[in-house]
Amino acid sequence: MSTSRERVAVFPGSFDPLTNGHVDIILRGARLFDSIVVAILRNAEKDPLFTPEERVETVRDVFREYPNVDVESFEGLLVDYAHRRRASVIVRGLRAVSDFEFELQMALMNRRLGPEIETVFMMPAEQYTYVSSRLIKEVFALGGPIAGLVPEVVELRLREKQEQKRL
Amino acid sequence: MSTSRERVAVFPGSFDPLTNGHVDIILRGARLFDSIVVAILRNAEKDPLFTPEERVETVRDVFREYPNVDVESFEGLLVDYAHRRRASVIVRGLRAVSDFEFELQMALMNRRLGPEIETVFMMPAEQYTYVSSRLIKEVFALGGPIAGLVPEVVELRLREKQEQKRL
Amino acid sequence: MSTSRERVAVFPGSFDPLTNGHVDIILRGARLFDSIVVAILRNAEKDPLFTPEERVETVRDVFREYPNVDVESFEGLLVDYAHRRRASVIVRGLRAVSDFEFELQMALMNRRLGPEIETVFMMPAEQYTYVSSRLIKEVFALGGPIAGLVPEVVELRLREKQEQKRL
Amino acid sequence: MSTSRERVAVFPGSFDPLTNGHVDIILRGARLFDSIVVAILRNAEKDPLFTPEERVETVRDVFREYPNVDVESFEGLLVDYAHRRRASVIVRGLRAVSDFEFELQMALMNRRLGPEIETVFMMPAEQYTYVSSRLIKEVFALGGPIAGLVPEVVELRLREKQEQKRL
Amino acid sequence: MSTSRERVAVFPGSFDPLTNGHVDIILRGARLFDSIVVAILRNAEKDPLFTPEERVETVRDVFREYPNVDVESFEGLLVDYAHRRRASVIVRGLRAVSDFEFELQMALMNRRLGPEIETVFMMPAEQYTYVSSRLIKEVFALGGPIAGLVPEVVELRLREKQEQKRL
Amino acid sequence: MSTSRERVAVFPGSFDPLTNGHVDIILRGARLFDSIVVAILRNAEKDPLFTPEERVETVRDVFREYPNVDVESFEGLLVDYAHRRRASVIVRGLRAVSDFEFELQMALMNRRLGPEIETVFMMPAEQYTYVSSRLIKEVFALGGPIAGLVPEVVELRLREKQEQKRL
Repeated sequence: MSTSRERVAVFPGSFDPLTNGHVDIILRGARLFDSIVVAILRNAEKDPLFTPEERVETVRDVFREYPNVDVESFEGLLVDYAHRRRASVIVRGLRAVSDFEFELQMALMNRRLGPEIETVFMMPAEQYTYVSSRLIKEVFALGGPIAGLVPEVVELRLREKQEQKRL
Repeated sequence: MSTSRERVAVFPGSFDPLTNGHVDIILRGARLFDSIVVAILRNAEKDPLFTPEERVETVRDVFREYPNVDVESFEGLLVDYAHRRRASVIVRGLRAVSDFEFELQMALMNRRLGPEIETVFMMPAEQYTYVSSRLIKEVFALGGPIAGLVPEVVELRLREKQEQKRL
Repeated sequence: MSTSRERVAVFPGSFDPLTNGHVDIILRGARLFDSIVVAILRNAEKDPLFTPEERVETVRDVFREYPNVDVESFEGLLVDYAHRRRASVIVRGLRAVSDFEFELQMALMNRRLGPEIETVFMMPAEQYTYVSSRLIKEVFALGGPIAGLVPEVVELRLREKQEQKRL
Repeated sequence: MSTSRERVAVFPGSFDPLTNGHVDIILRGARLFDSIVVAILRNAEKDPLFTPEERVETVRDVFREYPNVDVESFEGLLVDYAHRRRASVIVRGLRAVSDFEFELQMALMNRRLGPEIETVFMMPAEQYTYVSSRLIKEVFALGGPIAGLVPEVVELRLREKQEQKRL
Repeated sequence: MSTSRERVAVFPGSFDPLTNGHVDIILRGARLFDSIVVAILRNAEKDPLFTPEERVETVRDVFREYPNVDVESFEGLLVDYAHRRRASVIVRGLRAVSDFEFELQMALMNRRLGPEIETVFMMPAEQYTYVSSRLIKEVFALGGPIAGLVPEVVELRLREKQEQKRL
Repeated sequence: MSTSRERVAVFPGSFDPLTNGHVDIILRGARLFDSIVVAILRNAEKDPLFTPEERVETVRDVFREYPNVDVESFEGLLVDYAHRRRASVIVRGLRAVSDFEFELQMALMNRRLGPEIETVFMMPAEQYTYVSSRLIKEVFALGGPIAGLVPEVVELRLREKQEQKRL
């Protein structure tokens, strides 16, 4: 009957690198909202493995076939970025209790900074409970297998990065 | 440009009684999705204060002015009810760590029972952190003030119920 | 130099029965404040092992030598009782994360009901981490040793109660 | 070279009913220790669905092929039972933070009651994170599918029990 | 009747910068005890925004009107400092579960180092749940509004510091 | 009757330095399994106080009398090291909820990398709840007493290290 509003969600993060846990949440968000913007924080970590440009390129590669998944890097306050993208939702994945507390704190602060933007929490599939970017980098650096935990292109980029460093 | 799908959310619970914490989440859900169904579990508690019919009537009263908030009671599996209502989302409020764990467990079970229905968690305003139906009933029974913690009509119904019991 | 105000604390609970974890907190409270009232909830549990009168008597027995520890039972809202006793502090013991969340919720509700009464949380000695009234009753009922976990008089009362039931 | 001691583990619980989460832990325990005794508490729950005898029979059925898995019911203190079985280990499964706290409390009490018996915690496969006996009974009662969450024989017994009640 | 002892509390922290959450706890502590010392750790963080001297000055500014709030910086063990100040209480604020665990660990260590000094935990008003010094600095650095989250003088000092860095 | 397999456990960590909490878990592990290897991570921390060689020497010193406790340093993936040592068990100590979550994540990742190696969690005695290598170093650096929290030889090594740095 009514014409629904277009609902845009933002999924912020470092994605250094993108994991299959991230992919899972992004696909769930893309089904739930009209479009989802994967928003890569430029300066989140002090010493990232991949540059923001490399991360944008990799994430775009993975979601090439998904017209309602957009990928961009950003700086500054997340709520300001969300306003610029006319997004009304921030999507966050939840895995563990310690995630939960930090996420709640961030969400309350973001609500204060941008009260009209709502944060919603989504749950990755349980096989991704133990997958984090940090752990992936650690296991990879020690020579452990990471297939199945990250998209193939991410594994490829990790290998390239490793060879660059060795030269 | 594109025609968005109609997105229906279900917000399940006992609502014995409805609190301002519930109201807060329902209004947030009503802004985020095209419509939200407040789904009152018929047999959730062993010895409820209000009958399912009384609870449906009270919640309807509170949301009378909101055309996209629907109120109904239900029995059986939540995902079956969500299917009947053509809902694609289950909305749950999160307050505390202990909530979080139980909610995650329920959400994983519901995902198994109905994989195409997504559970999203939303955060009530922080002033409702300590408001639960159980605590409201306890404070009211001991003669404490509950104005500001429940809608006015709920306070009225609690007084009526108290007088009935005294007769 | 200055004349300090008299500071009265209330330590509420079921004390069914008093454990050495409770004793530890009461003694700490008695050192920290001018006096502490052990306030035994009359109707907290559905099916208590000891009557409120028995519990008052037992706790009084244990703190007979402590002039600034007072023991009483009460009904109704805790903050109303605290007002009647001119107490400005509610003391609560904290052992575990799950305690913590429930305690925080109660403390926020009590602050709303009586903003001039402050709740403070104190930590029992670590050897009482696993001691709760419920667990004591369970272990005792199964014939396990509880010496060192409750005051001697409590162990005696538990034995008397057990013999009464057997007759 | 050396002759290892025989190490017997006890896995206590209600098993009302046995779930695939339990099965997972039992098999891990049977690999880790020389033998494991599934020890079914006779009076753990007020109103169990299955009698202790029915539960013993069902669990025995499932582990028929495993010579080092023994199944028995017991009453009284767990550490006394462990002594009678010459067990040196109590095995417990851990799923969530709330499990963890209660389990730690129980383990500390059991250490006090029987210091020479060690409690070890094991982790079920992550697909069983949301599987508990209580949730299985709830979903089954509401007509939901439970295949894959419990052994086949448990599903059969649940159906039989349901038909008995209907007659 | 009796002459009460003078009770001095210590509230330790980095206060880099002071937030309204800190202010809330300090005022509660000043009401509960005869006096409270805000004790600023000199070397707590590797790269603080404000020098210890700047922090002392700012906190003094905010509590100028409160004769029983004292402000000082300190080095070394907290319990040694508390002894020097003849304090019998350490006050700590509690916001979240993760706070709680770390705080409990610290309090147990401090009890071991100075058994006659008691740690009490107090709860800030719920609107300060998400306010931490770290988050304030982050939001401010990204140009977000922080009025209402810190005292006015702190906002002023942050602006001055920002201009210094730009020169 | 049957000849039991030899069961080797690995207890990995930084041990910078060894605490009495570690000692407690190692002795429990040595009783529970046929032998236990204390496996010291070479590059776990960026700026360790003791070199891996110093840590190996100190831990060996403490367990000199225990023929089934072996001490070694290692690099690379823990599961690869466990394979080389023919270990079938990884032992981890659990103290707090935040430990628990991180430990669970690591254990799930290790299960994926080496499914035939089982992680078991053990509980230190409650008096070591607040003892961590980091806190020991902090208290020692501030001149606090650490006797009873670490083995004597560790306290000696800490003093030597302190004097070296002063020269």
